[in-house]
Amino acid sequence: EVKEGDVAVRTKVPVVRLKIGEVSEATSVVILPVCEAGEGETGVVEAPGECRSKGEFGVMEAEKGWRRWVVLPGWEPVVGLGKGVVVAFGDARVLPWKVNRWYKEEAILVVADREKKEVEAEDGFYLVSSVPDDHGGLKVERGSALKELGVKQCLGNVVLVVRPPKEEIDDQLQDDDWE
Amino acid sequence: EVKEGDVAVRTKVPVVRLKIGEVSEATSVVILPVCEAGEGETGVVEAPGECRSKGEFGVMEAEKGWRRWVVLPGWEPVVGLGKGVVVAFGDARVLPWKVNRWYKEEAILVVADREKKEVEAEDGFYLVSSVPDDHGGLKVERGSALKELGVKQCLGNVVLVVRPPKEEIDDQLQDDDWE
Repeated sequence: EVKEGDVAVRTKVPVVRLKIGEVSEATSVVILPVCEAGEGETGVVEAPGECRSKGEFGVMEAEKGWRRWVVLPGWEPVVGLGKGVVVAFGDARVLPWKVNRWYKEEAILVVADREKKEVEAEDGFYLVSSVPDDHGGLKVERGSALKELGVKQCLGNVVLVVRPPKEEIDDQLQDDDWE
Repeated sequence: EVKEGDVAVRTKVPVVRLKIGEVSEATSVVILPVCEAGEGETGVVEAPGECRSKGEFGVMEAEKGWRRWVVLPGWEPVVGLGKGVVVAFGDARVLPWKVNRWYKEEAILVVADREKKEVEAEDGFYLVSSVPDDHGGLKVERGSALKELGVKQCLGNVVLVVRPPKEEIDDQLQDDDWE
């Protein structure tokens, strides 16, 4: 746990499983640019920053064109992100979970805030480039691991992890599966 | 009413009013490229054609980048459009309604299918360029009007008209307000 002055900084990254047909229920939706983890830093850096929804129909206007987009319910961590980006990972097991409760491969979306590039909290999660021999891919690392390596900057602060919809009902991941 | 051989072709263009928070309720959503009526033919022609949703999260991948997008509920006329495009009009009154029941300005979205460029039905609605002195804008015309002028091609068949959400409940436009 990090102390900043006398204030304990405790970071929680929500992990949610999308329900079938859920991009819905919310009173608003968010459209975010998507890049693939395999594309590496380039995708994250080049994806449009500001994406504003305007007018009565919520038409989203990005600062520049982009090919890949995803719609998410207007969940608190993603609404109002100034420079949000979604990274699609093919296998959630690459994430630095505390315990590996996921035995099978599962696609996952990691939503990061590119306005926050400081590695601040030990228990925060950060989007970084993989080591060079990893074909320029992306990965998510814990603040503690990055600090040990002296890494102070990242590509973005992870604000939300989205798991795919599933037929069966299963428990949400516990908060303490992180860290 | 048009006769083709012995088959009467009757075209109905649904007009729907989006409800607040409705991009929702549907079990699916559709992301479509948007252009402004004022941009004219260029916008409609240049907007990406194929926009396919893939994978468990429904990540949409367009054939090319584009800046402006809108999310609509997965209504029947828009699901599966091969080359759908949305044109944003600032004032619904420019549309060729049968009766002018709308006395005030209201923004409107016209969804057109660019795979269907033939002016076929007298009672169909078609997206066309405005006359040159209209600053290269777009308009919607009835098949009957275009046929009178000998126009056989259009920019796209209108498949849906979307009105903005409204606080008060009001009646949907009647089918016979068209034509």
